[in-house]
Amino acid sequence: MSKTTTGDLRVAVLGVGVMGADHVARLSSRISGAQVVVVNDYVTEKAEQIAAGIDGCRAVVDPLDAIADPDVDAVVLATPGPTHEKQLLACLEHDKSVLCEKPLTTDIETSLAVVKREAELGKRLIQVGFMRRFDHEYARLKALLDGGELGRPLVMHCAHRNPAVPTSFDSAMIVRDSLVHEVDVTRFLFDEEIVSIQIVKPAANPGAPHGLADPQIAIMRTASGKHVDVELFVTTGVAYEVRTEVVAEKGSAMIGLDVGLVRKTAPGIWGGQIAPGFRERFGQAYDTEFQRWVDAVRVGGTTQDYTDGPGAWDGYAAAAVCEAGVASLNSGLPVEVAMVDRASIDGA
Amino acid sequence: MSKTTTGDLRVAVLGVGVMGADHVARLSSRISGAQVVVVNDYVTEKAEQIAAGIDGCRAVVDPLDAIADPDVDAVVLATPGPTHEKQLLACLEHDKSVLCEKPLTTDIETSLAVVKREAELGKRLIQVGFMRRFDHEYARLKALLDGGELGRPLVMHCAHRNPAVPTSFDSAMIVRDSLVHEVDVTRFLFDEEIVSIQIVKPAANPGAPHGLADPQIAIMRTASGKHVDVELFVTTGVAYEVRTEVVAEKGSAMIGLDVGLVRKTAPGIWGGQIAPGFRERFGQAYDTEFQRWVDAVRVGGTTQDYTDGPGAWDGYAAAAVCEAGVASLNSGLPVEVAMVDRASIDGA
Amino acid sequence: MSKTTTGDLRVAVLGVGVMGADHVARLSSRISGAQVVVVNDYVTEKAEQIAAGIDGCRAVVDPLDAIADPDVDAVVLATPGPTHEKQLLACLEHDKSVLCEKPLTTDIETSLAVVKREAELGKRLIQVGFMRRFDHEYARLKALLDGGELGRPLVMHCAHRNPAVPTSFDSAMIVRDSLVHEVDVTRFLFDEEIVSIQIVKPAANPGAPHGLADPQIAIMRTASGKHVDVELFVTTGVAYEVRTEVVAEKGSAMIGLDVGLVRKTAPGIWGGQIAPGFRERFGQAYDTEFQRWVDAVRVGGTTQDYTDGPGAWDGYAAAAVCEAGVASLNSGLPVEVAMVDRASIDGA
Amino acid sequence: MSKTTTGDLRVAVLGVGVMGADHVARLSSRISGAQVVVVNDYVTEKAEQIAAGIDGCRAVVDPLDAIADPDVDAVVLATPGPTHEKQLLACLEHDKSVLCEKPLTTDIETSLAVVKREAELGKRLIQVGFMRRFDHEYARLKALLDGGELGRPLVMHCAHRNPAVPTSFDSAMIVRDSLVHEVDVTRFLFDEEIVSIQIVKPAANPGAPHGLADPQIAIMRTASGKHVDVELFVTTGVAYEVRTEVVAEKGSAMIGLDVGLVRKTAPGIWGGQIAPGFRERFGQAYDTEFQRWVDAVRVGGTTQDYTDGPGAWDGYAAAAVCEAGVASLNSGLPVEVAMVDRASIDGA
Repeated sequence: MSKTTTGDLRVAVLGVGVMGADHVARLSSRISGAQVVVVNDYVTEKAEQIAAGIDGCRAVVDPLDAIADPDVDAVVLATPGPTHEKQLLACLEHDKSVLCEKPLTTDIETSLAVVKREAELGKRLIQVGFMRRFDHEYARLKALLDGGELGRPLVMHCAHRNPAVPTSFDSAMIVRDSLVHEVDVTRFLFDEEIVSIQIVKPAANPGAPHGLADPQIAIMRTASGKHVDVELFVTTGVAYEVRTEVVAEKGSAMIGLDVGLVRKTAPGIWGGQIAPGFRERFGQAYDTEFQRWVDAVRVGGTTQDYTDGPGAWDGYAAAAVCEAGVASLNSGLPVEVAMVDRASIDGA
Repeated sequence: MSKTTTGDLRVAVLGVGVMGADHVARLSSRISGAQVVVVNDYVTEKAEQIAAGIDGCRAVVDPLDAIADPDVDAVVLATPGPTHEKQLLACLEHDKSVLCEKPLTTDIETSLAVVKREAELGKRLIQVGFMRRFDHEYARLKALLDGGELGRPLVMHCAHRNPAVPTSFDSAMIVRDSLVHEVDVTRFLFDEEIVSIQIVKPAANPGAPHGLADPQIAIMRTASGKHVDVELFVTTGVAYEVRTEVVAEKGSAMIGLDVGLVRKTAPGIWGGQIAPGFRERFGQAYDTEFQRWVDAVRVGGTTQDYTDGPGAWDGYAAAAVCEAGVASLNSGLPVEVAMVDRASIDGA
Repeated sequence: MSKTTTGDLRVAVLGVGVMGADHVARLSSRISGAQVVVVNDYVTEKAEQIAAGIDGCRAVVDPLDAIADPDVDAVVLATPGPTHEKQLLACLEHDKSVLCEKPLTTDIETSLAVVKREAELGKRLIQVGFMRRFDHEYARLKALLDGGELGRPLVMHCAHRNPAVPTSFDSAMIVRDSLVHEVDVTRFLFDEEIVSIQIVKPAANPGAPHGLADPQIAIMRTASGKHVDVELFVTTGVAYEVRTEVVAEKGSAMIGLDVGLVRKTAPGIWGGQIAPGFRERFGQAYDTEFQRWVDAVRVGGTTQDYTDGPGAWDGYAAAAVCEAGVASLNSGLPVEVAMVDRASIDGA
Repeated sequence: MSKTTTGDLRVAVLGVGVMGADHVARLSSRISGAQVVVVNDYVTEKAEQIAAGIDGCRAVVDPLDAIADPDVDAVVLATPGPTHEKQLLACLEHDKSVLCEKPLTTDIETSLAVVKREAELGKRLIQVGFMRRFDHEYARLKALLDGGELGRPLVMHCAHRNPAVPTSFDSAMIVRDSLVHEVDVTRFLFDEEIVSIQIVKPAANPGAPHGLADPQIAIMRTASGKHVDVELFVTTGVAYEVRTEVVAEKGSAMIGLDVGLVRKTAPGIWGGQIAPGFRERFGQAYDTEFQRWVDAVRVGGTTQDYTDGPGAWDGYAAAAVCEAGVASLNSGLPVEVAMVDRASIDGA
């Protein structure tokens, strides 16, 4: 890879709320070879304030203008989900690589439309922000499974726990915003699609907001019959806990055990701290995700030129599983996942 | 408790196969206050051989004679399940305390008959061999939950793995012989009944014998809506692994993590050994179970006079859940557990 | 081993303070094949109270009468150290097996005298209460080392921490009462003598009683040049922590890591509990030590007939190392350990 | 911090052997805001080859020319230790910030000369490459100690193990190249100087090269009486292991326990992998060290403007302790550390 002053990737970050502002800081201070040249937010003042702190960066009012801007090489989407479809299509139209925070779009029809449009271009421009694929531990687990030493995976157990969620969080968001990560992890680790899903609702946590079905247990089955269960619990009051265990023919492997500094204190307690939130747990994963994306785009590559970069199809597939998950949340019954045949798309 | 030479509990051990022979050795060499005075087995030679090695012990051909023997104070049943009903009823008739290895009997009708007969006597004579209740870690978990510090339990995840099983093991035995322990653990830890069960069959382990549905996932719901899932996997090729995690309102707790001696060796590996079998994992639990049973019976107490000794009702309840489990194994659907009302029995 | 009612080992327990009372309870309720028939204490009322609670047990005022009693088969010494010499010699005179809590005697001259007297009898009657040899983890570590898989041991690191000690505890007792266990562990694991010892005194814990040199670091060298360091810290305020790590040619191994039930609670803490005291940490070791001693003595065996039972020589060797340790505590310099040649004794 | 294309820090990397080449890659592909514009090596071809792979980078034959180059803003020294003195003084003369891999210089006299020269300038330009200060775990340990929760530290135990070393490694290098890191860790964590050191030589590892005193045990004492012991073992054949435990008034804390992906495989083994080398163990620390250095230097700051950046004095102090360590290695006795009074320098 060559790196020159003039070769820095010029990035527009659309949406500078909590997540987008993180990405601006990431690109400005920890990622090599990129500059944030444009920021945009529907709260204009916020965009202007952030732009003012970065040399050579300006705020643009209309996100579509930012995408079209000839001084912008690539785009990061951290805007609300309902705006993604239009913005992604604009990126495709202007031939701009885009790193899109999940969800790809908010429903499977528009997700499929985006997938098809990109396929027609014959060029991969879209990467979806499933950052766990870039986490050291998930990467090691993937390598272990692919190496074949454990034989064929049979079962996976996951736990995904948040200490708390905003009051706006509802039962379906536990599927769409939390479970979606394990949906992608399943597809990533097993390289196959999920064919059915069932959501079990235990008696709710008394400490959860009234009406929130929390915890939930998701039970998924893959095309080849692998079983995946996921405990989703977003009001634990404890910390951010993500654990994944794969049970295979010749052994099992687990990631997400806490460790690091271990203390012993009165009255006879040993232990350590759990990551308080996803930033602490997955900060390295975000950095790696962005560095690899910048590296790939700078050399004129497509976003899938590096290992495991999830594309538009991965966003669509995750949306399809979550759609079925929400249906099961309502019915309590197993629901088949409805997806188009991928071959039909790639052949478009 | 008083202990005198003459006060030793005189025990008959019926069935001296692998498990029964273990119990003979346990009572003879590690348990205080008991003597094995009679052994019995349908293989007469085996009983005679064992009796010959113990001072004051003789072999008896008919198990019912052993039970009736006036020189026998109490009975340990390690005979095949189909013989339990008749032997238990004989113990009740002769007013002998009995420690009965699981299952209580092989079907819920006869189990219920035993429960009712004991209830009519107004006296608890039967203890069922759910030894996990006496394991240090389960006891600590129970104490933690009862202490209330973690709040109300909501979810439990269990794994129950065997390296291998005899060739005679079939899919239903995974429910009746393996899952039965988690059924009792659930009832013990949560102090409530299980109301429904579903068995999920993932694609089978290629290394499992043809036709054996292994692994299996059991999904249970308790009366108050707690969720329990159990991975059952009896051909792992690894070791004997039993893990239990309870997720509650204010935190979670896990037992069954391996540790002890930790080694570091070439080529850069750290770790330790997993218990190879149930004897190594639960040896202490068996010893404690027997010592407490001997202590209780010697002082003329009933078998439930000490904490958590599982009785005939616990054997019946476990059988009822497993019966529903086997039905679900065949149908793939959730099955309600059918049990009589306990109040109707105790009022008998 | 045969076990009959009449064959129970009749034991006299001398000294029924905290430790001795523990041993009475152990022999009465957890150890198979033994009865406590005599107890003795310089506080007569205490002995009588304990005797009253055990069928067939009586209090005896003079410890030497208890030893001489023809109804006593074997003796447990839990009396103060200064009385040990006379009591041990009485046991030898009356041909009674004796399990003697450390120290063997309070100085190396009298220890040596006891060793010589026993050697003259040509019969091993004395076992010293170094219970760690019977702890599961130490036994596994010993087996690992003896198996040769790790090659030749080179270095050992130990930590020995108490939450608190009685106000009577002085700096030399940290050597004589605490370090003595690691002295025996070193000799047990490495099968060789310790030839020099140095005690380092870091700045004292501000929370330690005035004048107590706590923590202390002991640095020992074995005959073949192995290095052992021990952190001794008896006022940690935390719990009872004992850790041992052996570093060898082909790898290392550690015991004493805490585990068991692992919890996660607010605010983002994971961990578990450390054993509060030596009873919890080494309870199993005491039980195993006593059961093996009873088993060996009952069959007419000597106390060294079972693996690793430490004898009078081990008590003498430990005393010699501690003697040198106390000298180093005072001088700050390394001190050679002065011991007679074992061959000269065994040839006596 | 502002970041513009023209604002990138222009760095000369002197010495592009294994470590220097790592740093070139680091600055080019993972560090934000820096460009490598000049490389130098005494093997000219190597420098030219590396320069050819980086846009805008050229090889310079004379390291002093590289330092003097007006297009170079800052310097990274990865040259052999004997060349450091001259190169550091050149950096000071040309007012260039320099990140110097350890050692500062190869003897304490020249180290002190460099410290004095920098002090005369009244400006901190030199940072020494003690990268452990930037490791997440050490940083957390430092924060824990500084927070006061554990009270005053009393004792520290360290282990520093390498699987193997080059055949050129001699006994003194174990002190100068390996122990030097724990010397800096001690000074960093405790904020005080080391006043004496003793090297203990156990019987050597039979697998170590003939004549190499390996393992070694270093015993250090700080000004306030804290005790530090370090096991140094560079031919373990296992992996790269670094462990640090601080024992304090109110508790203890340990870092360096291995974890991550935990596997269970036949025959009943659980465990994971240990980092094979320092790159895997401390890669994040090097990245953080470089990013903070670049950030500080770019805004015109001195190298000590960010937390814990070790300066020339830290290099001198480490050299003084190692000098005493080598003396003790030869004599076997404790050696006092001879250092000038820091106040005398800062007042220069």
